[in-house]
Amino acid sequence: MSRILKVAALQLGPVHATDTKPEVIDRHIRLLRSAASQGVRLAVLPELAFTTFFARHLFPDDVSLSSYLEHDLEVAKSEFFSRLFREAGDLGIDLCVGYAERTPDGRTFNSSVYFSATTNEIIAKYRKVHIPGTREPLKDGSGAHHLEKRYFEPGDLGFEAFRAPNVGEHPGSDGRKDAIMGMLICNDRRWPEAWRCYGLQGVELILCGYNTPGYNPAFWGTTDSPDPEKAETRIMAQHKLVVQANSYMNSCFTVAAGKAGLEDGVHRLIGGSCIVSPDGDVLAEAVTEGDEVIVAEIDLDDCIPGKSKIFNFGEHRQVDKYSRIVDQVGVREPPALVASTAGT
Amino acid sequence: MSRILKVAALQLGPVHATDTKPEVIDRHIRLLRSAASQGVRLAVLPELAFTTFFARHLFPDDVSLSSYLEHDLEVAKSEFFSRLFREAGDLGIDLCVGYAERTPDGRTFNSSVYFSATTNEIIAKYRKVHIPGTREPLKDGSGAHHLEKRYFEPGDLGFEAFRAPNVGEHPGSDGRKDAIMGMLICNDRRWPEAWRCYGLQGVELILCGYNTPGYNPAFWGTTDSPDPEKAETRIMAQHKLVVQANSYMNSCFTVAAGKAGLEDGVHRLIGGSCIVSPDGDVLAEAVTEGDEVIVAEIDLDDCIPGKSKIFNFGEHRQVDKYSRIVDQVGVREPPALVASTAGT
Repeated sequence: MSRILKVAALQLGPVHATDTKPEVIDRHIRLLRSAASQGVRLAVLPELAFTTFFARHLFPDDVSLSSYLEHDLEVAKSEFFSRLFREAGDLGIDLCVGYAERTPDGRTFNSSVYFSATTNEIIAKYRKVHIPGTREPLKDGSGAHHLEKRYFEPGDLGFEAFRAPNVGEHPGSDGRKDAIMGMLICNDRRWPEAWRCYGLQGVELILCGYNTPGYNPAFWGTTDSPDPEKAETRIMAQHKLVVQANSYMNSCFTVAAGKAGLEDGVHRLIGGSCIVSPDGDVLAEAVTEGDEVIVAEIDLDDCIPGKSKIFNFGEHRQVDKYSRIVDQVGVREPPALVASTAGT
Repeated sequence: MSRILKVAALQLGPVHATDTKPEVIDRHIRLLRSAASQGVRLAVLPELAFTTFFARHLFPDDVSLSSYLEHDLEVAKSEFFSRLFREAGDLGIDLCVGYAERTPDGRTFNSSVYFSATTNEIIAKYRKVHIPGTREPLKDGSGAHHLEKRYFEPGDLGFEAFRAPNVGEHPGSDGRKDAIMGMLICNDRRWPEAWRCYGLQGVELILCGYNTPGYNPAFWGTTDSPDPEKAETRIMAQHKLVVQANSYMNSCFTVAAGKAGLEDGVHRLIGGSCIVSPDGDVLAEAVTEGDEVIVAEIDLDDCIPGKSKIFNFGEHRQVDKYSRIVDQVGVREPPALVASTAGT
């Protein structure tokens, strides 16, 4: 018995501030059609898939920011989304896509939605919880800021897993054809708490869009900065490391779709879109820094061995020892040593 | 400014049930002396460093089990420990070592202690929290069980970081020469909760002993079992994956010391001892399946960039979203879909 399906990460090359949304959606649709021709049933587009990664720019006012946001709460009915989802529905592809959300009461979130081709509607929404970067511009001279904390609130929806219907080609070992999924956005994937909250809901497939910048010491704070190429290699390795390890530690698949290449002429995004198994193996990964469809056939029942043995949470977790994880936000170091043993 | 020191993982080849403890401690001391000759100031011996990994055997009674346990609560005063710690003290090496602990009231833990060469005493103790394996023997015909749940209670001391004095050769950027450390044992390293509890105490160095079995489908529950060699490669990769990712996500160094090779003629342990940086890089790793000293020079101040930027917990963590981590032990799946959308 197995629940086999083909999934795809739809990587996007650069989306510049000068590109129009209809042009960008043309690219989405080309990727969707290519995926459909390969038998894909579920696809993931990156974080902020309709625009450039605009958090690199310091806007003088909210009007300048506003053109990058989607203002319609019923996103599926907006001009752009409706065209994209009509295409996905026609192709029979479920789609996860990221966008900048402006709510009717003026709040702004870095969000994603899951469109089901079976029900022909959005069945789940996620708002990025771990907002990186700064409120004030970086003063590193690169011209690329990382102002996510200025523009986005931390997501208020938590980590709520959902079932997508009719995902597997065949019923699984327990007779069902649905799959338990969860969405993450970019920096969230570096926070094991986020994955574990989904793991504790039996998640089988994590969908993660991202826009990960290349080397910028003011943002990354890595130590050995002199060689940008070496630093870029490390950033790519750390991206895959966290996706692989957290997929393994929660025994789930992950589809991670990024943007790639030099956006707006100043800011390189790393790409590296990939599909990872519950064993932590990379099943497929991007080979370009442009628009690219990364496909893998997966069997959702491969989540079962890990969930029932080495990562059987009910058998092994000791929650009374984990209280620091929710009782404190930041670091509390052990008391300083007294002078007699401190060696000072 | 930097806090540079040389650390070592002291990997042990097989320790058979027929080996005596004095013989095993002779091996420990040879490794310690070799480390000292390379300038090492802190060393880690594996989990259950004095005996074979006896949880592979089903003992008929407590008397048979008892010979594998250390009964003295004041372990530093016991015959074996005192010899080992005297040597470490004479060499000026701090030492973390794992052993099976029988308490005066008859409880049994899989424990480790940290001996400080500066204070000439044990300054910290840890009891393994995540006990893997089964209470009943595995029926896979391999002859190697994994009865840790039968013999050990989950540790009751939690994850308490501690400061070891006089560890760095030079004072760090804040003028101190101590280091914040935490101990893990074997399976603990696959549980991100354990690392995070230490990360939230500003841990700079994780000391992790282990005895990780090679491929055994009844224990691991991996899916593609036909090729044992491929499965072994994966087990090694997953060991490094979790050490690298969790070191990176908590911006700390890790020294991981394992046992290696075929113990008791039936049970292969993977070895793969390694030293990992806060960037998730493997700085040094074992090249044999025998007794081996793995050395790296590290700068504890390299923990600072990650802790102050990308993993600045106080800036980025959203603890009100993490409640599932402590509120539930096992999995709670989302409700089943109603028939109209379930596609059955």
